Amino acid sequence: MTEERTSSLPAPETLEELQAAIEAHLDAGAPMIAAAELEELRAPDQAELVSELSEPGQQALLGALPAEAIADIIEHLEVDEAADISGLIDVNRMAAVLDTSPPEVAADILRHVDWTIASQVLARMEDRRTVGELLLYPDDDAGGLMTPEVTGLRENLTVGMALSVLRGAEASRESMRQLYAIDQDGRLTGVLELSDLVFAGPEKRVRDVMTSDPIFVETGTDQELCAQIMTRYDLLALPVVDREGVLVGAISVEDLVEVARDEATEDMFRMFGIGGEERTGESILASVRSRLPWLVLNLGTVLLAGFVLSLFDDTLEKATIVAIFIPVVLGQAGIAGTQTLTLIVRSIALGDVDQGDTGSLLRHELTLSVMQGLVVAVILGLVVLAWQQDVSLGLVVAGAMVINLVVAAAGGVLVPLGMRALRIDPAASSAVVVTTLTDVLGLLVYLGLATAFLTSIS
Amino acid sequence: MTEERTSSLPAPETLEELQAAIEAHLDAGAPMIAAAELEELRAPDQAELVSELSEPGQQALLGALPAEAIADIIEHLEVDEAADISGLIDVNRMAAVLDTSPPEVAADILRHVDWTIASQVLARMEDRRTVGELLLYPDDDAGGLMTPEVTGLRENLTVGMALSVLRGAEASRESMRQLYAIDQDGRLTGVLELSDLVFAGPEKRVRDVMTSDPIFVETGTDQELCAQIMTRYDLLALPVVDREGVLVGAISVEDLVEVARDEATEDMFRMFGIGGEERTGESILASVRSRLPWLVLNLGTVLLAGFVLSLFDDTLEKATIVAIFIPVVLGQAGIAGTQTLTLIVRSIALGDVDQGDTGSLLRHELTLSVMQGLVVAVILGLVVLAWQQDVSLGLVVAGAMVINLVVAAAGGVLVPLGMRALRIDPAASSAVVVTTLTDVLGLLVYLGLATAFLTSIS
Repeated sequence: MTEERTSSLPAPETLEELQAAIEAHLDAGAPMIAAAELEELRAPDQAELVSELSEPGQQALLGALPAEAIADIIEHLEVDEAADISGLIDVNRMAAVLDTSPPEVAADILRHVDWTIASQVLARMEDRRTVGELLLYPDDDAGGLMTPEVTGLRENLTVGMALSVLRGAEASRESMRQLYAIDQDGRLTGVLELSDLVFAGPEKRVRDVMTSDPIFVETGTDQELCAQIMTRYDLLALPVVDREGVLVGAISVEDLVEVARDEATEDMFRMFGIGGEERTGESILASVRSRLPWLVLNLGTVLLAGFVLSLFDDTLEKATIVAIFIPVVLGQAGIAGTQTLTLIVRSIALGDVDQGDTGSLLRHELTLSVMQGLVVAVILGLVVLAWQQDVSLGLVVAGAMVINLVVAAAGGVLVPLGMRALRIDPAASSAVVVTTLTDVLGLLVYLGLATAFLTSIS
Repeated sequence: MTEERTSSLPAPETLEELQAAIEAHLDAGAPMIAAAELEELRAPDQAELVSELSEPGQQALLGALPAEAIADIIEHLEVDEAADISGLIDVNRMAAVLDTSPPEVAADILRHVDWTIASQVLARMEDRRTVGELLLYPDDDAGGLMTPEVTGLRENLTVGMALSVLRGAEASRESMRQLYAIDQDGRLTGVLELSDLVFAGPEKRVRDVMTSDPIFVETGTDQELCAQIMTRYDLLALPVVDREGVLVGAISVEDLVEVARDEATEDMFRMFGIGGEERTGESILASVRSRLPWLVLNLGTVLLAGFVLSLFDDTLEKATIVAIFIPVVLGQAGIAGTQTLTLIVRSIALGDVDQGDTGSLLRHELTLSVMQGLVVAVILGLVVLAWQQDVSLGLVVAGAMVINLVVAAAGGVLVPLGMRALRIDPAASSAVVVTTLTDVLGLLVYLGLATAFLTSIS
C-alpha cells in the first residue's frame, strides 16, 4: 500500500487542520462560521469530521446546519453513528432531516434508534408511508437494502413518450441510471438504460429497446446472495420484486461494495470470535461484549487439552523431554488447520464451493497435508535428533506431526461444511472448533505415541 | 445464509444438468450442438460451465464457438483460467477474440500468458496500440484496472452538439453511463451523466451542466486506495488521468466490487500464510507453494517455544503438573492476540486507522486485555484450585494468564502498525509474529512464575 496521494482527495492533514479550525469556532461560540466552513467539503468528508467532534460540538454544529446538510452528513455516517447523532436533534427537526434523506437511509436509521423515538419521528414525517413500509423488511435482505425510488416505464409506451414522462417526473439522477420496464400490473418485464431511449427512434416502444428476461431478486433474498448475483452478472442495479413479481425497488451497486467489504470483514472477525460489527473506536464495554464470550468458551476447550495432558502424567514424569515438543506439535497443527479453514470459509462466502464439493476438497487438503506433513516431519525429526540425540523421540515427534496435520486438514474442511449443512454460519467461531480438535487429538496422538514407543519410558 | 432461491437465477441443479448434456454432446462428437446449447445461457453462467469441462472438452467446444462468444466467456473467467483457455486456441484466433474483448480485459489476459505467445497475439491484433499501452501499467494500480474506453466531451460544446457527437460515436452503452468534460488539451475538468444532457436545454454548454472539481486518481494509484475512494464517495466510475491531468481512462464500480472482495480475502489469507491468490480448485503443487513456506517458518518459531520450555526442565521434572496448564496459557493468549490482530489488520485495510491512532488503539486493547484477563484469571484460578487443590498453582496460572493477555494485546496492535510503518503489508504473515510473541513470552512468564513461586518446587 503506497502512501503517495496521486488523487484529488483532501490529504488527511488538510482534514485535520480543518477539524481544528472548526473546533476552535465551536469553542468560540460561533457555530454558524463552523457550519459554513464544513459545508465547503464533500459530504463524506463532512461526515468524517462530524463523527470526530465531541458530543457538545456535534450538537452546536448540527443546530447551525440546514436540514438538507444534516441529511447529507448522516447518509455518509455508519448507521450506528447516524443513530447516535439523531439523538442530539429534536424529533420535529429529525423528521425534516429524514424527509430529505433517501427513504432506505431514513428507514435504516430509524431501525437503529430507540423504538419510542423512531415512532415519534415517523409520525411527523411526510414520507412516513414509504419509510414505514421499508421498516417492515429485515436489515440484511433485499427489501431492507433496496431503494424504493425506481423508475418503471410501461413497456408499451413509445420512446418519445417515455422521455417526456421522465422529464416530467423530475426523477433523481440516481433513479435515471437504470430504468425498468413493467406491464400493466406493475410486474417487471425488462431493464433498459437512458441511452437505449435517447439513441432510439422516438416512435419505437419501450419493449423494443429493453433487455427482456431481466435478473431480479425477491424482497426476502439474503444480502450476501444479492452481492453474489450482482458481482457475477456485473450489475449496476439489481431490481427487487414482491411475490407477485411487481417491481418494488432496486439495490444499487454502491451499497453492494460496502456489503462485500462488510461481509468479508464479518467472516474474518467471526471466525476468531470478534463480533462481526466491532470496529476500532468502540467503547471498552462493547469490545468486552464482543470478545469475552469467545475467550471463556476457548478457556473451556484449552482446559480440555490440559485434561488430556494430565492423563499422561506418568509419561511426563518419566521423560520431561516429551513436554518440550508439545508447543511444536500443537502449534503446527493449529496453523495448518487455520489455513485450511480460512480458505474454505472464504470460498463458501464467495459462492465458490458447496456441499457437493466436499469430496474433492477433502481429497485435495488431505493429500496436501500428507505431503507437507512429510516435509515438516523430516525437518523436525532431524532437528530433534541433532538436539536431543534420541532416535525414537525424533520418530515419535515426526510421526505425530504427520498424523496431526492430516487431522487438521480434515477438520478444516469438515467443520465449516458441516456447520453449513446444519445451517449455522460457517464463519461463526469455527476456529475454536478446529483448534479444539487439533489440540485434543494432537495431544492424544503425540503423548500416546510417546507412551507406547519411547525407549526411555518403556 | 438461506438457500431459498428467491431470484431469477438458474438453480445450481439446472446448471449441472445442462453441463451433463453439453458433455454428452461433446463426447458424441457434436460440438456444434453443445455450443448452441451453451449460447442459450448468460455469459457468466457459460463461463462457469466452460471452466468445469475437461481440457479436450474445452478445446472441442471453443472450436465450435464464434470469436465474440469466446470473448464474452473469457471476460467472465478468473484471469488465470482465461489465460489457460487461451492456450487452447491458435494465436490468430486468439487475436480475433481479444479484439472483440474490452481492451483492459485483453491486456489483463495477455499479462497472464507466456510472454512469447502474448507478443505473437498482440502483433496480430487490430487493437494492438491501445492494448499495448495498457500492458505498460502494473496489474494492481489504477492504470492496470481502468478501461481506456471513456467518453470525453469538450466543455465548450453545446448540449445539442454533445448529444449528436454521442449519437455519431456509436460509443458502447457502458461508456455512456458516465461522461467526462475535458478542456482543449484533454485535461479532465468535470463529470456529467447522460441525463444532465438529455434534460437540459440544447443551447446550454457542457460546462453549464457538468459537476466541476471532479474526484480523480492518477494512473499510478494503488487499487486499494481506488477502492477506498470509490466507496467513500459512492462513485460509479472513477476517472483516471496522467501526470498532466489528461483523461486516459476510468475504473468502473463493477470491477471494484471484485477488488473489495479480493482484497479482503487476500488480507485474511495472508495473515495465516496462505498465498493471497490461492482458491479452491488449485493444483496440489500450487497449494504447497502457497502454504508450505509459512509452515516451515512457523516450525522455526514453535521450536523456539520448545527451546524456552527446555530451559525449565528442572521445574517440569519437580512438578509435571505445571505442564498441564501450558496449552491453557498459550491457547488463550494466542486467541486474544489473533482477535486484536484481525481487528487492526482489517481496520488498516478499510482505511479506518493509521499510525496516529496507535496510542488510542493501544490504550483500548490494553485496558480490554486487563479486564478480560481478570475475568478469565478468576475463572481459571478457581478451576485449578478445584481440580488440583493447590492455591499457589492457581495463583501462578491466573497471574500468568493476565500478563500474557496484556502481551497479546500489545503485540496485536504494535506488530501490524509497526509493519505498516516499515512499509510491509500488515497482513503479510503477521499472525506468525504475534503467535511467536505470545508463545515465547507466554512460556517465559508462566514457567518463570512457576519456578519462583510454586511451593512444591521451592
